[in-house]
Amino acid sequence: MRITTVGLDADDTLWHNETLFRLTQDRFCELLSGYTERAVVEARLAEVEKRNLRLYGYGVKGFTLSMIETAMELAGGEAPARIVREILAAGREMLNEPVEPLPGVDQALAALSERYRLVLITKGDLLHQEQKLAASGLGDLFAAVEIVSEKDASTYERVFSRHGTGAAQAAMCGNSMRSDVLPALEAGSYAAHIPYPLTWAHEMADAPMDHPRFAELASIRDLPAWLDRLT
Amino acid sequence: MRITTVGLDADDTLWHNETLFRLTQDRFCELLSGYTERAVVEARLAEVEKRNLRLYGYGVKGFTLSMIETAMELAGGEAPARIVREILAAGREMLNEPVEPLPGVDQALAALSERYRLVLITKGDLLHQEQKLAASGLGDLFAAVEIVSEKDASTYERVFSRHGTGAAQAAMCGNSMRSDVLPALEAGSYAAHIPYPLTWAHEMADAPMDHPRFAELASIRDLPAWLDRLT
Repeated sequence: MRITTVGLDADDTLWHNETLFRLTQDRFCELLSGYTERAVVEARLAEVEKRNLRLYGYGVKGFTLSMIETAMELAGGEAPARIVREILAAGREMLNEPVEPLPGVDQALAALSERYRLVLITKGDLLHQEQKLAASGLGDLFAAVEIVSEKDASTYERVFSRHGTGAAQAAMCGNSMRSDVLPALEAGSYAAHIPYPLTWAHEMADAPMDHPRFAELASIRDLPAWLDRLT
Repeated sequence: MRITTVGLDADDTLWHNETLFRLTQDRFCELLSGYTERAVVEARLAEVEKRNLRLYGYGVKGFTLSMIETAMELAGGEAPARIVREILAAGREMLNEPVEPLPGVDQALAALSERYRLVLITKGDLLHQEQKLAASGLGDLFAAVEIVSEKDASTYERVFSRHGTGAAQAAMCGNSMRSDVLPALEAGSYAAHIPYPLTWAHEMADAPMDHPRFAELASIRDLPAWLDRLT
C-alpha cells in the first residue's frame, strides 16, 4: 500500500493547547475560590461546557462563554464585575498566546513534506486556528489546511478525497484517540496516536491496539519511519 | 466570457442575519437602560466589537463576548449577574434561531444550480454557519462550501480556483459591498450587489457604479437573468 497523504492534527500534536486550557481553568478556580470548593467549580464547568458544545463547538471563545456562565451560576445574584472582566481577559490572553512547535515537530514535518502531501486537519475557532498556524511558521509545509467543526469518518473521507488520493492511501496522526485515530481508521486510513501529556476528558477513548492500520508512537519524531515502513 | 461558477454570500443574502443582531442589540440597550443612555451603549458596543474583531473574528460568539465586555464597562463595579445571564441567553438564542431562506432564494438557486457550479462563501463561526446551511435546506444545491475568516481578493482567487475554473470565469453575489463585491472585482470576477435593508457599518462601502463587471440588482430573483446575459 502506498501512502500519498498525511493528515496532521494541530492542537497538542504540533503545539501546546490543553496545557493552556488547564492553566486558564486553574486561574478560573482561583477566581471563584471565595464561593465554593475547587472540585465543585471544575465539575460545574465541565457540565456547562458539555451542554454548550452543540451550540458553541470547540475553541477559546466558547470556553470563555462557558466560564462566564459557570461563574454566574456559582457566584449567585451579585457577582463582582471583576470576575467577569478577569475571565474575558483570560480568554483574550489564550487567543494572544504565542505559538511554538512542540519538540521534534519542525524536523519531522520537513522530512515528511518531501515524501507526502501534508494536510492539517483541526477543530476549533476558524480565525484562531489560522492565526496559530501562521504564528507557528509551519504553514508552508502543508499542501492544504482544513478547519472542521467535527472529526468523524466522513470528515476524513471528504478531506482525503479532496486533497489526496482517498482515505485508503492516507494516514492520520494526532493526540486524540477519539477524534484523530478512531474515525480515521473507520474511514479506511492508517492512524498513528502520539500522546500529549494532558488530554481533555471529551477526547479520551481506548486504543485500538489490535487494529492492523494503527500505531502508538512515543513522539512525532517516529512518524516518518513508521510511514516509510508502510510504503 | 463564459461564467462557470457562482459564489454566493450567506448571511443577509440567503437568509436574515443583521436583523437578528439588531434585535439582540436593542435588547442589550434595554438591559443597560438603567446605567446610561442608548446612544452611549451603542457607541461603546461598536467600539468594543471593532477592538475585538482581530481576536474574535465574525460571528455570534464574539458578539456575545463583546456585549458582556461592554456591559461590564458601563455597569461598573457591581453588575447584577442577571445582566450577564441575559446576554448569554440572548447569544444562545441567536445560535438557535430558525433559518428561513429570504424570498426568491429557493427558486433562484434552483435555476442557477442547473447552469452553474454554486459555491457558498461566508464568514462567521464555522459550526454555526454549517448549522444554518443545514437548517436552510439549501445545502444540496451547492457544489462546495467555504467558511472563511476574511473575504479579500486572495480569498476569491483561492476559492474560485479550487472549486471552479478561476476567478475570471466566476461571479460573486452578496449584500456587502466591502466583502462580497469589491474584493471579488479585484480578483477579476464579476460581482452583483443585492442590498439587504440593514447593513452592519463595518460592511459598508461605495458602489463601483462604473465598473464593467459590476451590477446592482434589486433582488436575487434578477441574478439568473444577469448571469445569462453575460454568458
